[in-house]
Amino acid sequence: MKIAIDAMGGDFAPQAVVEGTMKAADRYPHVEFILFGPEEQIKPLLTQPKENIRVHHAPRAIKVDDSPVMAVRRQKDSSLVMAAQAVKDGEADALLSAGNTGAVLTAGLLIIGRMKGIDRPGLMATLPSFADNHAYTILADAGANVDCKVRNLVEFAHLASLYQEKVFGLKNVQVGLLNNGTEEGKGNALTKEAYQVLKADKQINFAGNIEARETLTTPCPVLVGDGFICNAVLKTVEGTAMTLMAAIKEAIQSGPLSAKVGGLLIKKPLKKLLKQVNYDQVGGAVLLGIKSALVKAHGSSSAVAIASALDQTVNIVSSGLIPAISQQLEKEVAETLEQETKEG
Amino acid sequence: MKIAIDAMGGDFAPQAVVEGTMKAADRYPHVEFILFGPEEQIKPLLTQPKENIRVHHAPRAIKVDDSPVMAVRRQKDSSLVMAAQAVKDGEADALLSAGNTGAVLTAGLLIIGRMKGIDRPGLMATLPSFADNHAYTILADAGANVDCKVRNLVEFAHLASLYQEKVFGLKNVQVGLLNNGTEEGKGNALTKEAYQVLKADKQINFAGNIEARETLTTPCPVLVGDGFICNAVLKTVEGTAMTLMAAIKEAIQSGPLSAKVGGLLIKKPLKKLLKQVNYDQVGGAVLLGIKSALVKAHGSSSAVAIASALDQTVNIVSSGLIPAISQQLEKEVAETLEQETKEG
Repeated sequence: MKIAIDAMGGDFAPQAVVEGTMKAADRYPHVEFILFGPEEQIKPLLTQPKENIRVHHAPRAIKVDDSPVMAVRRQKDSSLVMAAQAVKDGEADALLSAGNTGAVLTAGLLIIGRMKGIDRPGLMATLPSFADNHAYTILADAGANVDCKVRNLVEFAHLASLYQEKVFGLKNVQVGLLNNGTEEGKGNALTKEAYQVLKADKQINFAGNIEARETLTTPCPVLVGDGFICNAVLKTVEGTAMTLMAAIKEAIQSGPLSAKVGGLLIKKPLKKLLKQVNYDQVGGAVLLGIKSALVKAHGSSSAVAIASALDQTVNIVSSGLIPAISQQLEKEVAETLEQETKEG
Repeated sequence: MKIAIDAMGGDFAPQAVVEGTMKAADRYPHVEFILFGPEEQIKPLLTQPKENIRVHHAPRAIKVDDSPVMAVRRQKDSSLVMAAQAVKDGEADALLSAGNTGAVLTAGLLIIGRMKGIDRPGLMATLPSFADNHAYTILADAGANVDCKVRNLVEFAHLASLYQEKVFGLKNVQVGLLNNGTEEGKGNALTKEAYQVLKADKQINFAGNIEARETLTTPCPVLVGDGFICNAVLKTVEGTAMTLMAAIKEAIQSGPLSAKVGGLLIKKPLKKLLKQVNYDQVGGAVLLGIKSALVKAHGSSSAVAIASALDQTVNIVSSGLIPAISQQLEKEVAETLEQETKEG
């Protein structure tokens, strides 16, 4: 297995990316990690040279505020575009980048390319769950597609279900539709129609509407919605957790001595909890529906976060998720043809 | 001032509604409270008869699962419809209900009626803020309009700004647009266009895009978005806060003795905080853009919650918010006419 890494993507690149890669290289001696970036910058950072890390020279870096489509089209010698091209050309099995989100998604779509049969690839965010039956809830689409058609939500449901099955080993994955009420008939124009199509789809184990209030606790391992709503939900979870934790700290510090002592005593469980709701810590978001695996790590990724996003990338490739998606798509096409032949 | 109260609305009606009304009647001796509901049920609950509480017989109650439009159209002798009719007829200045949300909003629209010049009245939710410059952030629309046009968001911005000015005494109220990124040009089809119209509107102090992550901490006292997105954000704040608090409790209880002791010591500040983020506790949501004040209290309102929603109702009526909205609308119509005359 070979993983192409955009060494220049992210707020702490290339330092954090190179360090994270060295950690991952120790964990996975049989995986080859290819760092794309300016040799003169990357090589000095490789303080512990490894046999399974290679540097591939790419002189430029796409910036965070570059226009995504323009950057991907024009900066052919950038670390991101060259890494994506290596995946496209079969020189690597997966792409990891912590860079400009729009540019990373665009590189996935334009260079690696959509799978046949998929209208819009979906970005899968992995949110730690407080439910007993699964560890992570996947929100799809997490922001790649802000305006969606019903077909897109149905595709996200398929892709995310397979992700839970193949990578996390779940069976009969229940899919919830993020909506503004639990009853059938609730929703906006999109979710009302999507409800009916999801319900009728025999390949999906549809659990009905789920309100955003249940995001952290729902027994459904998959929640689907358009990229605008899922993005808002993810960011609200993050913002609320951060604000609450800061407020608890403040309440403890400005309280009487007893509160300060109490605070010290519960510091450890609180820290653990905060880490759990910080979805950025759980590797990265995965773009599914393109021809290879693409993991987008958070822009502010530390070396540890890069290493954990690489864990995730290795897991996805070795799980066989991408071929499984493509097989299912072929099966569906074949079934549709068969159906049409029968009907015709 | 007279307030019409749907005594049969809410999970704990009529008991909690009657009790809450008795509390409010003590606080506001010059306000008349009219309880609409079956006399034989309401009167025995009025254990402390007050001069400023009157019961108006209404034999029926709309149920939580009744279809809103059907219920309001057909159940003319229900407590909600009769209370709304009293407001329409000028027998009361405001309506309070904790009943079926859809039915309450429908009664506001169909019976009390839209103000001239308003396309879609907006539901204003009041969320406690952690910012220094204001106590409550208003989210509009909080769920009455799940599919919106740009015009609707602009109207919500106007209505919510006036609400902050008149009821909470703020000046130069900054309005943020809930969006999936802060930069101009971010968003879905609706928010991209709304950004430009809000920016060009000289009556609105537009602060640009605000990400959902900032909901609790933004310095903007008003956040606008369609009813689907604001509803999701509100429910995610609530769900995340509840889940985190439960998890903290669990971590403390299952931890070592030191954690248990720590937990006891910080119990009080934690409880205070939880109350602060529970938006249901802050009175109710207000439907603005109809001809009179309408407050929708949460379905699970206790007597205390009903009393605090009545505080809010009294505040709104005595602030002169409703006439101020109608004056502003008349002024806008006059200005548009003048402009057209000049151009013509």
